Amino acid sequence: MNLPDLRVDGRRLLARIDALARIGAIDGGGSCRLALTDDDGRGRDQVVAWMREQGLVVSVDAIGNLFGVRGGTDDLPPVMTGSHIDTVRTGGRYDGILGVLAGLEVMQVLDDAGVRTRRPLVVGVFTNEEGARFAPDMLGSLVYVGGMPLAQALDARAIDGPRLGDELQRIGYAGAAPVGALRPAAFVELHIEQGPVLDLDGVTIGAVEDLQGISWQELTITGQSNHAGTTPMRMRHDAGYAACAVATFVRRMAREMGAGQVATVGNIQLHPNLINVIAARATLTVDLRNTDETLLKRAEAWLAEFLATLARDEGVEIGSRVLARFEPVVFDAAVVRRIETVAGRLDLRHRRMTSGAGHDAQMLARICPAAMIFVPSVKGISHNPAEHTQPDDLCAGANVLLQTLVELANDKEV
Amino acid sequence: MNLPDLRVDGRRLLARIDALARIGAIDGGGSCRLALTDDDGRGRDQVVAWMREQGLVVSVDAIGNLFGVRGGTDDLPPVMTGSHIDTVRTGGRYDGILGVLAGLEVMQVLDDAGVRTRRPLVVGVFTNEEGARFAPDMLGSLVYVGGMPLAQALDARAIDGPRLGDELQRIGYAGAAPVGALRPAAFVELHIEQGPVLDLDGVTIGAVEDLQGISWQELTITGQSNHAGTTPMRMRHDAGYAACAVATFVRRMAREMGAGQVATVGNIQLHPNLINVIAARATLTVDLRNTDETLLKRAEAWLAEFLATLARDEGVEIGSRVLARFEPVVFDAAVVRRIETVAGRLDLRHRRMTSGAGHDAQMLARICPAAMIFVPSVKGISHNPAEHTQPDDLCAGANVLLQTLVELANDKEV
Repeated sequence: MNLPDLRVDGRRLLARIDALARIGAIDGGGSCRLALTDDDGRGRDQVVAWMREQGLVVSVDAIGNLFGVRGGTDDLPPVMTGSHIDTVRTGGRYDGILGVLAGLEVMQVLDDAGVRTRRPLVVGVFTNEEGARFAPDMLGSLVYVGGMPLAQALDARAIDGPRLGDELQRIGYAGAAPVGALRPAAFVELHIEQGPVLDLDGVTIGAVEDLQGISWQELTITGQSNHAGTTPMRMRHDAGYAACAVATFVRRMAREMGAGQVATVGNIQLHPNLINVIAARATLTVDLRNTDETLLKRAEAWLAEFLATLARDEGVEIGSRVLARFEPVVFDAAVVRRIETVAGRLDLRHRRMTSGAGHDAQMLARICPAAMIFVPSVKGISHNPAEHTQPDDLCAGANVLLQTLVELANDKEV
Repeated sequence: MNLPDLRVDGRRLLARIDALARIGAIDGGGSCRLALTDDDGRGRDQVVAWMREQGLVVSVDAIGNLFGVRGGTDDLPPVMTGSHIDTVRTGGRYDGILGVLAGLEVMQVLDDAGVRTRRPLVVGVFTNEEGARFAPDMLGSLVYVGGMPLAQALDARAIDGPRLGDELQRIGYAGAAPVGALRPAAFVELHIEQGPVLDLDGVTIGAVEDLQGISWQELTITGQSNHAGTTPMRMRHDAGYAACAVATFVRRMAREMGAGQVATVGNIQLHPNLINVIAARATLTVDLRNTDETLLKRAEAWLAEFLATLARDEGVEIGSRVLARFEPVVFDAAVVRRIETVAGRLDLRHRRMTSGAGHDAQMLARICPAAMIFVPSVKGISHNPAEHTQPDDLCAGANVLLQTLVELANDKEV
């Protein structure tokens, strides 16, 4: 069989997606495998078992990133694909998982066809991509490319308390391999879009050319707890009100800025959190994203101004801590073009697009040519058990990945 | 000694306040004795021990209200005082406690002076006044006056899950006495103001002539969880944003209404409550109070209109559940005048005032002439470990209580 005619086995891919979704399954068909929990550990065990079945050389590095390597004919740097298998608390079954399992499927197709590529192929599974249990998100790939010292990452604290390094040990994924030892020649990640663009446009393949910058802050507001009935409105120092004023401000700001600016307050904790007590303390998170670094900085500056005014008007203290800050990323033009070419050859509708979410590929882009392949998310729903991508679209994305990886792995001059 | 010359023993009163504050003590000098927890049980045990030491006849009714009765010379209905000893989670040491322990101190002074009153005197300790663990607040006194069926109250659920009736059994305060068996001839409650009025005006005694109406609702908002990076602002159904919009709306409404309208969102829970996930669900509480029932109803109506608009604009569902609703209360004019007269005779600066908080006295006012005595809260701080009242003011309040109770108890025609 000619290389351009190779296709993935959709049923095999879907069966593995189903099997992984059953680990940490939640109502509605989704999964909860928060990073480095027992369920994440069981998910990793399953992926390792599949890698071993396929005869891949498995290694785990010191930050828990997991790699399956399929050798090449030449002594050249490998081409890497992959993603993550950790989820948010109300996760779907495709976010991250598709990129890992499609990578394994690509290798299986090559094995079945007896194809050897010039360069080795690697499937990477990166630690704590979601950031739902440890900050920052994309931690494993960030450490992998040298963007954060290993020791600092191991000291990260989970939202439920434990230290990241201890959790890695506990679930058996504190590996021996040095972090970043495999230097890929190129990196391509297949992922669901997690947004509505492809689904609305009826397009199957997104060739992702850039990615939003991300600014995550945690705000701590200190007011004065007091009786909800007897304290006149003008004498209040209400940390709960201030937290809510931040959330309504960033919503208004994002609507006014337009141009793809998004802003979310997803997490709020009040103390003492009682019906008849003005809150003494509030913590909340603010997630700001924009593809334009100048606009993202402007949003951060406007928020800072608002916080200063709010603190003065309400008589509260507001502390801010950066949880994550990544500039927008531009992917490698040649890899993006190659994805488009492959999609065209496979007769798939495709378009260039921006990623609204952060992905491991943005970290890998720091050390090698990288880009991403997106497939549609029905109604744009993600981080939700209802997250869905049509089976045909999953296979189409996997086929684009297959052809792109084979071309890159056989190209001496990636 | 003449009756008008009797005075409380301030050191004895303060020592008991200190002793009770040590049960469920929290940092900063306050207490946490949420209703019907182990610590509330230990607090009750201490009060019962003091009642028995003083030779009072102790009874506990089926909703856990606790009474200490000192007999009179005549066969007449008793005069009752009292309050509560449960606290909010970040409670102070005086809220409620002062009214109970000053009542016991009054009886001790009469014992020491060998005084018998015509009518019996009763100190009542009412269950779950704060409403911080079970809704509604003032539950024990509400059931006492027939405002809620006993069975319904016993089925109330704690914020941490258990059924009220089961918690009463567990801590040993599911009493045998029928609820409401003691029908008082009059009720007078001594309490800290929990607001800033007396402290700001340099006035020692507040003769409380009326009390704000209270409207408590729990709102449940259902939106759609989705990815914080990839979901355009216009496509969001963000339950967290909607919750915060409610909090900022009620703040603005209360400021615009003025005239003593207060509004508080003290409790918010988001789900899944993660930094990068648009909240699927939010619950929050809204506490509205006004002395004018017409204005309170107007505030409720405006909130309902806002919720309808918000639900439509954001594409979320908003459900509302009434947790408590009490109309404003006007206390008995004769009892209020008597408190003023006594305060004047004791050379204490005094003024008539409104209570911003709900109190057991408002329930007792449904079945007998009732009123309240307030003493200053330094800076108006309450529901906070920093809650403070000067020792001289505590004693002044207890002396006004002493004289008022003695007069009422010796008056055949209360």
